[in-house]
Amino acid sequence: MNRHDLALIGFGGVNRALAELIRDRGDELATELGFALRVVAITDLRLGSLMQEDGIDLDAVFALAPGATFAGWPGGDAEPRNVEVIRNTTADIVVEATFTNPIDGEPGVSHVRLALEAGKSVTTTNKGPVALAGPQLNAIAAANGVHFAYEGSVVSGTPVLRFAASTLQGLRVDAVRGILNGTSNYVLGQMEAGMDLAAAVAEAQTLGYAEADPTADIEGSDVRLKVVILANEVLGADITPADVTCTGITGITPADIVDAAARGLRYKLIGAAERLADGSVRASVEPVALPLTHPLAGISGPTNAVSFETDLLGTVTVSGPGAGRVETAYALLSDIIEIDARVAQTAAARR
Amino acid sequence: MNRHDLALIGFGGVNRALAELIRDRGDELATELGFALRVVAITDLRLGSLMQEDGIDLDAVFALAPGATFAGWPGGDAEPRNVEVIRNTTADIVVEATFTNPIDGEPGVSHVRLALEAGKSVTTTNKGPVALAGPQLNAIAAANGVHFAYEGSVVSGTPVLRFAASTLQGLRVDAVRGILNGTSNYVLGQMEAGMDLAAAVAEAQTLGYAEADPTADIEGSDVRLKVVILANEVLGADITPADVTCTGITGITPADIVDAAARGLRYKLIGAAERLADGSVRASVEPVALPLTHPLAGISGPTNAVSFETDLLGTVTVSGPGAGRVETAYALLSDIIEIDARVAQTAAARR
Repeated sequence: MNRHDLALIGFGGVNRALAELIRDRGDELATELGFALRVVAITDLRLGSLMQEDGIDLDAVFALAPGATFAGWPGGDAEPRNVEVIRNTTADIVVEATFTNPIDGEPGVSHVRLALEAGKSVTTTNKGPVALAGPQLNAIAAANGVHFAYEGSVVSGTPVLRFAASTLQGLRVDAVRGILNGTSNYVLGQMEAGMDLAAAVAEAQTLGYAEADPTADIEGSDVRLKVVILANEVLGADITPADVTCTGITGITPADIVDAAARGLRYKLIGAAERLADGSVRASVEPVALPLTHPLAGISGPTNAVSFETDLLGTVTVSGPGAGRVETAYALLSDIIEIDARVAQTAAARR
Repeated sequence: MNRHDLALIGFGGVNRALAELIRDRGDELATELGFALRVVAITDLRLGSLMQEDGIDLDAVFALAPGATFAGWPGGDAEPRNVEVIRNTTADIVVEATFTNPIDGEPGVSHVRLALEAGKSVTTTNKGPVALAGPQLNAIAAANGVHFAYEGSVVSGTPVLRFAASTLQGLRVDAVRGILNGTSNYVLGQMEAGMDLAAAVAEAQTLGYAEADPTADIEGSDVRLKVVILANEVLGADITPADVTCTGITGITPADIVDAAARGLRYKLIGAAERLADGSVRASVEPVALPLTHPLAGISGPTNAVSFETDLLGTVTVSGPGAGRVETAYALLSDIIEIDARVAQTAAARR
C-alpha cells in the first residue's frame, strides 16, 4: 500500500490531535483512503526534535513525562532543530503547525519554503505563511514539483478553500464574504442578548473561545489575514494584509445593536473580498448590520461561515466550526488526502 | 481539444438554460475547463426530435416559432423519439431533464438505463430515477464503464452531493439533515410573520416558488425523494421512499409557530437521515421546532441547506438556491465537469 511519511513541525494541540488520529484510526483511514500514514519526525519548542525514519512510536511520545524531552532517544535531541529536521527528514510531507506570526510570518514562511525547496510537500494550519507569502510559496511548490495545501488556515477543518476549488468549477466567483472569527461572533451575539463588550469578551475567554489577549479577535487583525487568503485563493488576487481595510468590533455599542435589531438588522464582523468592474479586488474587515434574511445573519456563536457570490448560482454558503484542535487536525488530514491525489495524478500523467 | 457531445432529453427550462449557457459561454468555458461542449441531439414533447452529429445550430432551435417542430429539419422529426435518440445518438453524455415521476420514476428510469447500457454517461436533474433506482443505475453505469451523475436532483446547483463526496473524505458522516424544499420553507417563514397557511401558499405561487398544485411541496413528498437520495449517496444506505416516514407542514398552525417562537424555537420542514447504532439508517420528513442557534434555523425564504453531522468536524452546512432554471442547469454543467474528470482518470489509469 502507498504510504506518506510525515514530519510534524510544532507539537501543540493541532499536530498532537493529528498524531492521535493516526494512532487511533490509522488502519481504518488506510483502508478508506488507500494510503497509510506514518510519523517519522517531530519537532517542538519544549520536547526538542526526533527523527526516526522507520516510524516514531507515538504512544511513547504521548507517554513523555511533563518537562521531559527527546534527548537520549535514538534520533532525538533536546533542541527544536526545525530547520535541520525539515531539510534532513525522510518525510515526503511536512506538517507545519507552529504559531501564527502576523508581522512577517516567520518562522513559518522559512519552514514552508525550506520544505518545498527540499522536494517535500507541505500542509499547514498557520495563517502567517499563507497570508504573507502564499503566492510565492505556491510558485516554489510548482517549481519543485511538490504541493502546498492550507485548508486549515481559514475556518479550521470546515472545507471552504476546497469547496471553492473542487465544487464551484465553471462558475465565476464575484465576491467572498465570511464570518471568520468565532470569538468576535460569539461576543456580538452576547451583546445582542444584553451583555456589554467587556463582559462578553470575559465570558468568551472563560469558555475557551478567546485568547488571553483577545486583541487580534476583537480588532479584526485575525480576520484580515483570512481575507487575504480567501481573496488570493478564491478570487485569484495577489494582495497583502496592508491592502485590507480593517475595523474591529470595539466601536459597536449595545445601543447600536438594539437600534439595528429594531430595524430588522444584526451586526456581524464581516471579512469580504470582491472583484470590482476594473478587475481589481477590494478587501475589507468591518462590522456590517445585515438583514436577518442574509445567509450570514443566522450564523451564531463560535461558528464560522463563508458565502461565495457567483454568476450562475447566486450565493452559496458553507458554515462549520472555525476552531478546535481535532477540527483543525482534520484540515491537515484533508490536505494530505489532496496531496496524495495530486501526486497520483502527476504519476498517472507521466506514465 | 477534448470535447463532449450532448444529447438533451427534454427541452424545458433547465436544458434550455444549459443550451443557452453553451451558446453564450461555451468558448470561455472550454478555455477554463479544458474541453468543449456540443449539442448533437434534442428531444422534447412539443418540439419532437433532432439528431445532427456535426452539432446542432442552437440559435436556429431558439428561433423556432411557437408551435413549430423539428419536422423537416435534417435529422429532425415531429415526434419526441426519446428511446430511439438515446440509443442512436452519437453523444457521449445524455442529459436527462424530463419531469419527475414520484411513483415509478418513468420514463426517466428507462432513459437513464438505456443510455448507460448504450455506453453513454448520464447527468440528470430528475429526482425520480435517482430516488427510485439510484443504486441499480449506478451498478449499470459501473458495469458499462460509464458514469451517472445527478447533483441537480437535490438542492438544484448547490453542490451538496459533490461537497460530501469530494471535501468530507476521511470523516464519518453520522447524519444528514436538510431544508430541501424552498416553497415549504418560504411558507413557514410567512406564517411566522403572521400569514395563515393558505395565504402563504398563494403568495408562494404568485412569486413562482410553488407549483399550481403545491401538494408535493407542502405534504413533504418532494422532500421524501431527496432524503432517499441523500441517505443512499451520503450514508451509503439502500432505502426507497417507502422507508421514509413523512409528515408535511399542513398540520402546523400559526398558534404552533407563535408558541414555538415564545420558547426560542422556529419550525422548519426537515428531511433527515441518520445512521443508528446497529448500522441501519432511519429517515424522515417532518416539521421540527429548532433552536434559533441551529445551523438550519436561520435558513430563510426559498433557500435550501444541508447539514452534515460528522465525527471529527462536528456539523458543517452548505446552503444555497434550491431551484431556478439557470441554477439547476449549473448542476448539469458541474456533473459534466465531474464526468470529464472521471473519464480522464480512467484513461490515465489504463495507459
